[in-house]
Amino acid sequence: MNFELNDDQVAFADMARDFANRELAPHAAEWDREAHFPVEVIKRAGELGFCSLYAPERVSGLGLSRLDASIIFEQLAMGCTSTTAYLTIHNMVTWMVARFGRDEVVDDLGVRLATGELLGSYCLTEPGAGSDAAALKSSATRDGDAYVLNGSKIFISGAGSTDVLVVMARSGGEGAGGVSAFIVDAHSAGISYGRKEEKMGWNSQPTRMVNFDNVRVPLGHLLGEEGEGFKIAMKGLDGGRINIATCSLGTAQQALNAARDYLRERHQFGKRLAEFQGLQFRLADMVTELVAARQLVRMAACKLDDGHPEASAYCAMAKRFATDVGFKVCDEALQLHGGNGYIREYPLERHVRDTRVHRILEGTNEIMRLIVARRVLTEGAAEF
Amino acid sequence: MNFELNDDQVAFADMARDFANRELAPHAAEWDREAHFPVEVIKRAGELGFCSLYAPERVSGLGLSRLDASIIFEQLAMGCTSTTAYLTIHNMVTWMVARFGRDEVVDDLGVRLATGELLGSYCLTEPGAGSDAAALKSSATRDGDAYVLNGSKIFISGAGSTDVLVVMARSGGEGAGGVSAFIVDAHSAGISYGRKEEKMGWNSQPTRMVNFDNVRVPLGHLLGEEGEGFKIAMKGLDGGRINIATCSLGTAQQALNAARDYLRERHQFGKRLAEFQGLQFRLADMVTELVAARQLVRMAACKLDDGHPEASAYCAMAKRFATDVGFKVCDEALQLHGGNGYIREYPLERHVRDTRVHRILEGTNEIMRLIVARRVLTEGAAEF
Amino acid sequence: MNFELNDDQVAFADMARDFANRELAPHAAEWDREAHFPVEVIKRAGELGFCSLYAPERVSGLGLSRLDASIIFEQLAMGCTSTTAYLTIHNMVTWMVARFGRDEVVDDLGVRLATGELLGSYCLTEPGAGSDAAALKSSATRDGDAYVLNGSKIFISGAGSTDVLVVMARSGGEGAGGVSAFIVDAHSAGISYGRKEEKMGWNSQPTRMVNFDNVRVPLGHLLGEEGEGFKIAMKGLDGGRINIATCSLGTAQQALNAARDYLRERHQFGKRLAEFQGLQFRLADMVTELVAARQLVRMAACKLDDGHPEASAYCAMAKRFATDVGFKVCDEALQLHGGNGYIREYPLERHVRDTRVHRILEGTNEIMRLIVARRVLTEGAAEF
Amino acid sequence: MNFELNDDQVAFADMARDFANRELAPHAAEWDREAHFPVEVIKRAGELGFCSLYAPERVSGLGLSRLDASIIFEQLAMGCTSTTAYLTIHNMVTWMVARFGRDEVVDDLGVRLATGELLGSYCLTEPGAGSDAAALKSSATRDGDAYVLNGSKIFISGAGSTDVLVVMARSGGEGAGGVSAFIVDAHSAGISYGRKEEKMGWNSQPTRMVNFDNVRVPLGHLLGEEGEGFKIAMKGLDGGRINIATCSLGTAQQALNAARDYLRERHQFGKRLAEFQGLQFRLADMVTELVAARQLVRMAACKLDDGHPEASAYCAMAKRFATDVGFKVCDEALQLHGGNGYIREYPLERHVRDTRVHRILEGTNEIMRLIVARRVLTEGAAEF
Repeated sequence: MNFELNDDQVAFADMARDFANRELAPHAAEWDREAHFPVEVIKRAGELGFCSLYAPERVSGLGLSRLDASIIFEQLAMGCTSTTAYLTIHNMVTWMVARFGRDEVVDDLGVRLATGELLGSYCLTEPGAGSDAAALKSSATRDGDAYVLNGSKIFISGAGSTDVLVVMARSGGEGAGGVSAFIVDAHSAGISYGRKEEKMGWNSQPTRMVNFDNVRVPLGHLLGEEGEGFKIAMKGLDGGRINIATCSLGTAQQALNAARDYLRERHQFGKRLAEFQGLQFRLADMVTELVAARQLVRMAACKLDDGHPEASAYCAMAKRFATDVGFKVCDEALQLHGGNGYIREYPLERHVRDTRVHRILEGTNEIMRLIVARRVLTEGAAEF
Repeated sequence: MNFELNDDQVAFADMARDFANRELAPHAAEWDREAHFPVEVIKRAGELGFCSLYAPERVSGLGLSRLDASIIFEQLAMGCTSTTAYLTIHNMVTWMVARFGRDEVVDDLGVRLATGELLGSYCLTEPGAGSDAAALKSSATRDGDAYVLNGSKIFISGAGSTDVLVVMARSGGEGAGGVSAFIVDAHSAGISYGRKEEKMGWNSQPTRMVNFDNVRVPLGHLLGEEGEGFKIAMKGLDGGRINIATCSLGTAQQALNAARDYLRERHQFGKRLAEFQGLQFRLADMVTELVAARQLVRMAACKLDDGHPEASAYCAMAKRFATDVGFKVCDEALQLHGGNGYIREYPLERHVRDTRVHRILEGTNEIMRLIVARRVLTEGAAEF
Repeated sequence: MNFELNDDQVAFADMARDFANRELAPHAAEWDREAHFPVEVIKRAGELGFCSLYAPERVSGLGLSRLDASIIFEQLAMGCTSTTAYLTIHNMVTWMVARFGRDEVVDDLGVRLATGELLGSYCLTEPGAGSDAAALKSSATRDGDAYVLNGSKIFISGAGSTDVLVVMARSGGEGAGGVSAFIVDAHSAGISYGRKEEKMGWNSQPTRMVNFDNVRVPLGHLLGEEGEGFKIAMKGLDGGRINIATCSLGTAQQALNAARDYLRERHQFGKRLAEFQGLQFRLADMVTELVAARQLVRMAACKLDDGHPEASAYCAMAKRFATDVGFKVCDEALQLHGGNGYIREYPLERHVRDTRVHRILEGTNEIMRLIVARRVLTEGAAEF
Repeated sequence: MNFELNDDQVAFADMARDFANRELAPHAAEWDREAHFPVEVIKRAGELGFCSLYAPERVSGLGLSRLDASIIFEQLAMGCTSTTAYLTIHNMVTWMVARFGRDEVVDDLGVRLATGELLGSYCLTEPGAGSDAAALKSSATRDGDAYVLNGSKIFISGAGSTDVLVVMARSGGEGAGGVSAFIVDAHSAGISYGRKEEKMGWNSQPTRMVNFDNVRVPLGHLLGEEGEGFKIAMKGLDGGRINIATCSLGTAQQALNAARDYLRERHQFGKRLAEFQGLQFRLADMVTELVAARQLVRMAACKLDDGHPEASAYCAMAKRFATDVGFKVCDEALQLHGGNGYIREYPLERHVRDTRVHRILEGTNEIMRLIVARRVLTEGAAEF
């Protein structure tokens, strides 16, 4: 057992911190205010390998472990939560394409996603169906040399500004087993995009509905086999949950550091805020829970890397705990800033708005609880 | 002991609900998005007496109790949190002027504030000094027939769009006893306003810094006597805390109702959300805590109405508890909406943003805890 | 709306406090240690009317409201949680007999229960069935001039030391509608008692299983009509929930007072504990939540007194909130005592052990949540 | 980074689990009820090396890391919290003697403590002084070939039944720097023991006050140098905090397993409890927080093993978090058992009583927060 970063991880973290300080942090407030999707910065991130952290070397990915990726994403999230969160989704898409795609697709789209030349979106959620596979209604019907896609997807990160969509659609019968996963050119005929959603936060990435109206997808753009779509989507999500949890960690650390500095510098009633015991207690709880959350995320990442049979349950635990703790730490850090926490001149209110959605997406924290409970209550399941 | 509204209160509540449904709710989202201060609507509220709910009849105020006012403000807050919150501040200012002003000022400004012809702002907080009276630096120096004001105030609700400022400034020595309260024409020579703060929420009311540079204030514009300013400010705040707590109650009730309806209507995994026990537990806790918070606020209002010796402590309890519970209920209601809770098409994320500041202003919830603890720990204090 | 005790209520509270200080508090630790059921003290409580607070005057009950009773029980619980809790159960039984019994039973047993000459137990829960009416298996079969009871009841307070049992048993078909309520002589042939349960707390009242083996009960000992048993049991429980919630309030107030005094007196690091802000924050939260809980309990009592259509939901809210808050306050008060909180020389650990069961009995707090949620989610239910 | 046990650790854990199942679990309830200190079982634990897990090989200790010890203690605590907690204190004493003692003392007492032939107690806390070194009043005056000890120590685990006391006493001036640590024969002339404290839990180990009345201690029984006593005591406590946190983990895991099994087996309203979503959510949170707490404890143990400069802060975090989570998990597990959780026939109420003290001793969780906050707020401290 070992809780320290190795030399490579330290180096990766340094590189990511440097990129975050240079390319993300100075612009994050503006991107939030202007709802600007910084494609050019994402592409520069791609030059450093940040678009394909755990994609295989075959597509020129860095081939890192999920743990390594988490260490890197945490640093990036300290610079801009929302942009980093999109980057993690792009990484998930890139990995799915590279891992489950046909050779020719991998060699073309996979490689271009890995460098950041193309950007990807993950299209699972449908109107009226969150985490319920059985309710998935988008259809994929085979017609000659193509599948024909119909249906709608909502809350799609990056949609309208990305190039490649990974789409889950029903090619077979009812239930999870009837779902397949497809790689779809985002500019295909028959695809239309809804208006850009106005959101509480995550403003540096566009979110739109995507409509598929008889969209033809080449047969070779299937991921895995027919009927494996839901399984593949869930595999992607295990990592996606680690990633989102990680974005909460980084943002919370940033908020915590700001609160710590604020307590050190500000005075009230003739004393530094840092000397008030009531505030010290708060800060101690923030640090403690954040450190605990980080370990849980890293542990889950290792379980995923090791192919542990209960990896999905650990990922669900990590996502639930780290996104709740992350939000709470940001919220407390805002509170410790008093009125300054509420105005946009300080980053705290943005941290609160950005981390709020982490408790909802990639499976709500309620779904995470169900996943965990189901495993714990299964006869014969390992002890956690 | 009696926990039911009387007939008058029911009638007031109905009138307020009607106004909220007609004049506030339909525009609240837009005012938030556009950062629009709906002065015309506030004036129409004034026509119904909502600008002087507990101001005395002498200024044509309704002369209601704080309890009555809380019942009314709660309904208004269901329509628009931010506008109602401003309205409560205006009521506080109106009451301070009418209660502590010289006759000629009461008969002129007092009356015009009471009708909503003039709007008021409350100027206590200074840069670097939240709730610390001793640190208050704005100065008022007597010069012939006037006081000359110098200094700066921050986070002033309505500033730049209001007509009358109640300003706390130091006319005497150190400590709370050196502070006086003044009624200041907001358009006086020497007053300048900072830029409109960009805030997390409360966007339908402008917030600005106010700078006083040799501003001359007639001697007769003193509130109470010299040196009573901090005491008067605190008296205003007792009621102000009830009011802000009330704004949290109304908003939380609105969020709760939305969540209840959403659970009733939406389906997942083939069942209405309302049938999921995990979500039922949440909803039950939300209702229970909100009902408890409402009783505590109303109790504190009654203590204030009755001149109870521990009224300030009860107001502090009510403010702390109701603003924490109110935020939590809004946050949970957002969560129960899943992804829809995060987008501006639904009101939940606005409720969260708007109620967030209630935990901070009119004395942070940390200050509330100190006020309560100090009383409880005072030898000979009543049992609570 | 009015949150103050009237003169009668103040007088009742004084009388109860006096009794608690004189007859309960000095012995509570010993009764806990020795598991002694202080029957003689309960009978003295009966002389003051405490055995029939809300029983009708017909049985010489005080005929007080549930609110009055709550005010009295709270004071008694400050003296001994466990003994007062039994007393509330006895009051519930007395009320059920006096309210739903046949004339001859009311005039005999009802009167003797009301004075405390006889003591009562409430027999609803069965092995393997907590709050599930449908699962109730005890049977009552009509045989000539008697019902013949068979079955078992568990967790029966007072059992083995009481005289009158109110027993819910199935006289008809399945479901709640097949259940009837009976008044049973505790010394009847065919009744046997299990061993005295060793419990975490509530040690001043014995808890036993009760077995019914062909126990003959006169026809006239039916409460209400056949098939009304579950409804009657639930009516009793609405009040019972107020009562248990009240026992949590009184105990928590006692614990809070102890903690307050401890903070005032003890020193660490050269200061009174009362001067540590971290501890002040805790104390403030304890007081605030306890005051809120008390109002909610009293509100629910008033709703019950007024026959409000949602009285059951309010009772469930009050029971859930006040028993959770009560336990938390006791637990925090223990913590504020440091090591002294853990030893039996101080009453804190007893308060924690005694209040722990309040979250479980008279319907667990999980069942309370279901009751509340069900009402809130019912189409057309009043707004809470 | 690696979160898996290695083969040795798995083997140690198996051995400990086996001992716990065989020697502790079957008797824990009885030891609690009878307040029996199972000295003979502790000595058998010593035969397996459990009395000197991290004492050096020089005294025939196992020389394991703190991490290894934590893995072992967790398994033992699943069998009996209270006995294991004493065992951890004994290990701390043994380590202090072996690490800081003079050669002849190490070779004699050190060795005999390591085997469990002699049992040890740790004597730091004094009446009226918890964690405040400056307030420590016990004195050690040099007199010829001995130190003469005077003063009193309270809450001493094992006192009256142990053989060796490690005593902190003031040999020099004020403050922490005037304190020295001594090894004292528990049967020395001048030592008297108070009565056995009656406690909420931890009943299988006696707790007593220890009075020193001119107790002569050979000069060679000093630990380290004069004036190093407080530093040595704190070093012992860093490990002690890991140990107590570990006892919470093991007990909570045991409680969780019991709750899981109970939910699987019991039925209500015609369904297995395991099928109720409200209860599933609870169980998921229990598991998740327990897993997070375990990682934090193990991380802190590793920091201690590695001599990390912030090891004390990590130990404080781990102690605070794991003892709070541990208690909460036990409390929730009790709740999930309903009425059965409250009776001694089931182990849940014992788990709650036993883990309650972990939040208090070895430094209260409030002191832990201060330790953590102080480091975080120190200019130049590492980021956590």
